[in-house]
Amino acid sequence: MATIKDIASYCNVAVSTVSRVLNNHPDVSASTRKKVLKAAHDLHYVRNTSARDLALQPTNSIGLVVRGSENPFFTSIIASIEASCEARDYSMVLHQIPVTADEVVEGARLVQSKRLKGLILLGGRYDYTREDVEAFGVPFVCCAYTNRFGKLDPADFSSVSIDDKVEAYRATKMLIDNGHTKIAILLDSAHDRSVSECRYRGYCDALADAGIPLDEGLVCETMDFEMRAAFERVTRLMAERPDVTAIFAEADIMAIAAIKAAHDAGLTIPDDISIISIDGIELSRFTTPTLTAFTQPQTLMGQKAVEILVEVLDNAAPCSHVRLETTLRPGGTVGHVRTET
Amino acid sequence: MATIKDIASYCNVAVSTVSRVLNNHPDVSASTRKKVLKAAHDLHYVRNTSARDLALQPTNSIGLVVRGSENPFFTSIIASIEASCEARDYSMVLHQIPVTADEVVEGARLVQSKRLKGLILLGGRYDYTREDVEAFGVPFVCCAYTNRFGKLDPADFSSVSIDDKVEAYRATKMLIDNGHTKIAILLDSAHDRSVSECRYRGYCDALADAGIPLDEGLVCETMDFEMRAAFERVTRLMAERPDVTAIFAEADIMAIAAIKAAHDAGLTIPDDISIISIDGIELSRFTTPTLTAFTQPQTLMGQKAVEILVEVLDNAAPCSHVRLETTLRPGGTVGHVRTET
Repeated sequence: MATIKDIASYCNVAVSTVSRVLNNHPDVSASTRKKVLKAAHDLHYVRNTSARDLALQPTNSIGLVVRGSENPFFTSIIASIEASCEARDYSMVLHQIPVTADEVVEGARLVQSKRLKGLILLGGRYDYTREDVEAFGVPFVCCAYTNRFGKLDPADFSSVSIDDKVEAYRATKMLIDNGHTKIAILLDSAHDRSVSECRYRGYCDALADAGIPLDEGLVCETMDFEMRAAFERVTRLMAERPDVTAIFAEADIMAIAAIKAAHDAGLTIPDDISIISIDGIELSRFTTPTLTAFTQPQTLMGQKAVEILVEVLDNAAPCSHVRLETTLRPGGTVGHVRTET
Repeated sequence: MATIKDIASYCNVAVSTVSRVLNNHPDVSASTRKKVLKAAHDLHYVRNTSARDLALQPTNSIGLVVRGSENPFFTSIIASIEASCEARDYSMVLHQIPVTADEVVEGARLVQSKRLKGLILLGGRYDYTREDVEAFGVPFVCCAYTNRFGKLDPADFSSVSIDDKVEAYRATKMLIDNGHTKIAILLDSAHDRSVSECRYRGYCDALADAGIPLDEGLVCETMDFEMRAAFERVTRLMAERPDVTAIFAEADIMAIAAIKAAHDAGLTIPDDISIISIDGIELSRFTTPTLTAFTQPQTLMGQKAVEILVEVLDNAAPCSHVRLETTLRPGGTVGHVRTET
């Protein structure tokens, strides 16, 4: 096996120069660096790692699996998680997967390939079994969701999220309090055993408590979290159900698509139709009118996820579950229902 | 120094069990895992890393420094870079910094602390000196921008971007071709020696070629890349300059804020005012009307950035510079200027 001396003589440079290159010191010219690295590669050099060197390796790594990376709701949570990892001397290894991918398989693979100490899942299923998550083999946190439909022992995992059902109840009730009774819900799927189903249940409970019968024709499933699908579903709703006066959208990006669909159908918001959602991302301040939304504390959510994971990793603290509350961001998309004239 | 046997006897488990825990194998109970890891920590165990183990370490890492992580334009580029790294057996280490931070200092620090092989900068200054970037000590790629105002030798770095000036010229010319002469530009700063200045120059050239004198009162600088600042600047423009009939926004998120400001000022788009931008993110499809935009090839941009960096790292290929073109995404925010009646 080649040594650092072999590389030095092969390149006709000093051993100290080779050392500087291999230790990523900046004071080496680009051409020398290139020559040394190529020689190290050609000679099959493998670093004889001492304990001191090993301490410099990024082994204190936490994985972050983001399911649905196009979702702007996640952007500031990711930034917050990264900053919080940094502050606690952990590296964050990011892995973004489509909403259609399986975060359990992907997370387990990431832990193995990157030798991670812990895992944060940003977005995922709500119905894990013990077998599902045993593959991780490291402590993990469900961020922005929790295991409401699953079979996990709360002592075996951590979570940080809002209470989806409670917040959906609040959003729906705000529409009811404004006189609405023909209230549609816009969501991925009412039976996904995930975020959508939780929020659907809150919507149903709010209607039931107000004595408003559930109207299946107002349950608008997109079977997809894309804005385009939401736009098309609301366009169809406008055509089929002229009696609808309000929409509760399960997420801001769906509400933004709903606003667009209502505008394009010639409706005025909120005079003809009210729209409310849960998330409260910065972008939805700039819809016309500004989207009325229950805002999730995105930065705090990221901070808490790292905090409780690092407590488990560094101090063998027990797993914990944090429920955060939303705050109402006032906007212009909710109005009193118009009385028929 | 403690050995794996010390840990086994301390915990009263088999050596093979300790090995499984330390190698992140899944078939160990959570309680045993916790006990072993705590013992390893308490006994100051340091792994005796063999070459085989080392090969499993995530040392083949590329850093990605994202300046302005709240910018949704970057979202799909980040996803594309991550997928491309993965496909080429590199890990991506993400570091997000605010637009006000210095990507050179942050990037150099990241290379050192994570022992990175290479660096991709997503967003940054256009005026690096040789001294600036020598601190990196590894090959790097400017992604979504290049060193137009700087002093770097093109052989010393790589870049993937559109030609900002050319694309800004096209956007401005499209407004001119629709009869507009009172065309505002909405941008961070006209003299930032960065993306804004490049796009400002394209705007100026298009006006000059059409014989339209530059009107300083229509140069709307926000001195900030926040949507709120853009909204406030356009609100002021509407009040001060009722003669303006079109706005070229340097980015989609600024255009979205401009649309909101125009709506709130009681104007109709595009009848009263036309708006065009460069970026073409998914969200701006859902403004009312859909934002007319020159779309950057975001996925391709991320792929190319990784491709040229890995060629340098793996095959000692020379640095390269890739210029990509935008495509016009048709929308409803550009109309012919109304003739005075």
